Amino acid sequence: MEQDIHFIGISGSLRKGSYNTSLLNAAAGLLPEGVRMEIVSIADLPHYNADMDLPSAVDRPESVNKFRDAMAKADGILFASPEYNYSIPGALKNAIDWASRGEDSPMLRKPVAVIGATPGLWGTARMQLGFLAVFQYLDMKPVLKPEVLVNQANKKFDEFGKLTDQTSIDILRKKLEALKTLCKDQKLLSAKA
Amino acid sequence: MEQDIHFIGISGSLRKGSYNTSLLNAAAGLLPEGVRMEIVSIADLPHYNADMDLPSAVDRPESVNKFRDAMAKADGILFASPEYNYSIPGALKNAIDWASRGEDSPMLRKPVAVIGATPGLWGTARMQLGFLAVFQYLDMKPVLKPEVLVNQANKKFDEFGKLTDQTSIDILRKKLEALKTLCKDQKLLSAKA
Amino acid sequence: MEQDIHFIGISGSLRKGSYNTSLLNAAAGLLPEGVRMEIVSIADLPHYNADMDLPSAVDRPESVNKFRDAMAKADGILFASPEYNYSIPGALKNAIDWASRGEDSPMLRKPVAVIGATPGLWGTARMQLGFLAVFQYLDMKPVLKPEVLVNQANKKFDEFGKLTDQTSIDILRKKLEALKTLCKDQKLLSAKA
Amino acid sequence: MEQDIHFIGISGSLRKGSYNTSLLNAAAGLLPEGVRMEIVSIADLPHYNADMDLPSAVDRPESVNKFRDAMAKADGILFASPEYNYSIPGALKNAIDWASRGEDSPMLRKPVAVIGATPGLWGTARMQLGFLAVFQYLDMKPVLKPEVLVNQANKKFDEFGKLTDQTSIDILRKKLEALKTLCKDQKLLSAKA
Repeated sequence: MEQDIHFIGISGSLRKGSYNTSLLNAAAGLLPEGVRMEIVSIADLPHYNADMDLPSAVDRPESVNKFRDAMAKADGILFASPEYNYSIPGALKNAIDWASRGEDSPMLRKPVAVIGATPGLWGTARMQLGFLAVFQYLDMKPVLKPEVLVNQANKKFDEFGKLTDQTSIDILRKKLEALKTLCKDQKLLSAKA
Repeated sequence: MEQDIHFIGISGSLRKGSYNTSLLNAAAGLLPEGVRMEIVSIADLPHYNADMDLPSAVDRPESVNKFRDAMAKADGILFASPEYNYSIPGALKNAIDWASRGEDSPMLRKPVAVIGATPGLWGTARMQLGFLAVFQYLDMKPVLKPEVLVNQANKKFDEFGKLTDQTSIDILRKKLEALKTLCKDQKLLSAKA
Repeated sequence: MEQDIHFIGISGSLRKGSYNTSLLNAAAGLLPEGVRMEIVSIADLPHYNADMDLPSAVDRPESVNKFRDAMAKADGILFASPEYNYSIPGALKNAIDWASRGEDSPMLRKPVAVIGATPGLWGTARMQLGFLAVFQYLDMKPVLKPEVLVNQANKKFDEFGKLTDQTSIDILRKKLEALKTLCKDQKLLSAKA
Repeated sequence: MEQDIHFIGISGSLRKGSYNTSLLNAAAGLLPEGVRMEIVSIADLPHYNADMDLPSAVDRPESVNKFRDAMAKADGILFASPEYNYSIPGALKNAIDWASRGEDSPMLRKPVAVIGATPGLWGTARMQLGFLAVFQYLDMKPVLKPEVLVNQANKKFDEFGKLTDQTSIDILRKKLEALKTLCKDQKLLSAKA
C-alpha cells in the first residue's frame, strides 16, 4: 500500500480572484495518487515582530502557532505566488518569516516547490529565483524542475478561475509528481538514517 | 543658501530594541547639513491585497495613503533593515508592495539607500543584494556604495541602542552624504529637463 | 552644438550568427543623435589570472590593456548578452573580471546598460538580474529601464541577422536614449563637481 | 563494504597561490572515508563558443571533452571559488557553460557543493548565492548547508597555503560529509528507481 504524502498549499496573493490562488486550486485537482493537500491562508498572520516571537510556542500569537502546526504536519510545501516588484510578496514572506524561526522551524530541510502565475510576460521568473535564497537559509529541498511559470494568465484561466491551458496543466502535474517523489525519497532516507 | 533635502527613514524591524531602528536613529543624528529625515513606521499597514488597492487613492486604506504621502514628500528613501531568511523582511516588503503600485507610485525613479545591521557575521549582505531586484522593477536610483553592513551588532551598539563603533559611524556618514548628493543631482537634472 | 557621447558595445556571445551580436549591430544602427559606438570583442582575452594582473598596466597582457583602454574612452557601456545557465556567460564575465580590477578600473561608476536576446521564452531576465550584483560591486550607474528582453529571437531577426520586430526596435531605441541621457547627466554633474 | 564515492574538485581561481586552490587541497586532505576526489583544472578550456559546441562529442575541443568526461565520472562536484565582482569568476563560469550543454551534460541533476575563501570580510557569500541560479537551471542537488565561507583568508592559511583555522576545518569537514551523504542517497534512490 502506498504511503500517504501530505502537502501544504499556500497562496502568496490575498485578493479573491487571484490567479495564484486559482493555480493552487488547479494543483489541488491534479494531485498525484496518494497525495492530499491542505490549503492554508496567510491573511491573518500579524507582521513578524521578534518581541512576539517568544521561545515558548505557547507565547506566540495563536494564528502563528496554527500556521506553523499546519506546516509541521506536511511532508512538502507548495507555494503559489505572484511576483511583486520582481520578488516575493511581503505578506507571503512574512508568513515565511514566522514559520522559519527556531530550531523547531517546520520549514527546515523540508521539500518545497514554487509555482507562479502572472498576466505579464515573464512568468514570475525573478520571484522564483529570489526564493532560492530562502531555501538556502533554511536548507530546504527544492523541486527545481520543471518550472511552472504561467505567463499571460488572463488567457490561461477561464472566467471562473479554472486553469484551461493544457501546457500549463501538464507541467503543473509534473511539478506535483516531482514534489511527491521528493517527499517519498526524504521519508525513505529518514527511515534509513 | 543650500537647498533643503528631505529623507524618509524606514526600519524593516518592528521589535522595540531593534538594531536596525537604532541604526536609523544613528543616521538621524548624522545627517549632512541641509538634510532632514522623517522616520515612518510600517507596523500599521495591512497585508497588501489588490482588492483594497483601488484606483482612487481615496479608496486605499488610510494607513496606506499616509505611508505613500510621506514617501511622496521625500527626495530620497533610507531603508534600515535586518535580513530574514537571506532576504527582505516580509513586513518591510509589504510596505514596499503598497508604495510601489501605480503610475503615481512615490518610489518610482527615486533615490534610495539600504543599510543593515545584524548580530551575525555577514552583515545583511544577501538582503541588500535582494533589494536590487526591487530597484530594477521601480527604476530607482540606488546609492550602491559605500555599503553599510554592520555585523556583530551586539558589539557595535551600547546598551541604550547607541551606535558606538567608529568605523560604522564613518561609513554611515558617507552613505548619507552619498544619498544627499544623489538627491541634489536628481533635483538639478529635473530642473534642467 | 551637442556634446558627443561615446558608447562601447560588447557582445556576450562568440558564435558567428549570434542573436546578441545581431542585437548589438541593431543598436549600432539606432544610436541617438550625437552618439557613436565602438564594438569591441572579448574573444582574445585570456582567462583572468591574478598572477598576470600586475600593478603596472604595462605588465598586463596586451589584449587586456587594449580592452581596458577601449572601455576607458567610453562614456557608457552597452552589454548585449545571452543567458547561459540563468546567468552571465563565462567569457563575458571574464572580460568584466579583467576590466574591473584596480582603482583605475574603467568600469567604476560608469553608466551601463544590458540588453539580451534569446530564442527562449524568458528573454534573459535572470541573466540581467544577475548583472545587478556586478553593478553594485563596481558602483556603476545602470540604466534599469526600459528592459530589452528579446525572447523568441528566431522570430524577431531575419535570416541575415537583421532585427525586424518593431516592438523590439522601439524599446531598444528607448534604452539607447536612456543610456545617452545618463551619460550626458554624468558629464554635466562631473563638470559641476 | 562501503560503496566508493567519487568527487570532482574544481578551483575557480587560476593563480598559483590561490586561497581557493588551497581550500580545495585542504578538502582533499579531509575527505570522509570511502571518498576520493580528482582535482581538475579549468585553465585550458577555450572560451565557450556555440560554433565549437557541436552535437557530436567528437567534434568538441579535446580539452572540453576531457573536462566533461572527468565530471561525468564523478558522483558529486565540489567548487572552491573566489568571488569576483560579487559573482562567479568568468573562467569558472566558462567551464560550467561548457559542461552544462546538451541532454548528456554531466552536471544535470548531480550533487554539488560550493565553498569559498577570500581575504575580505564577507566570505564570498554573494558569489555562493549567485550559484543558486546555475543549480536551478541544471536541476542540480546542492548541499546548501553548512556554508563554507572562509573570510580573512590571510589569517586562516599559513605561508605554505595550509588551512590552519580550526573552525574552517571543522565546517569544511561537515560540508564534505554532507556532499558524501547526498551522493550516497542519490545512488540509493537511483538504484531503487
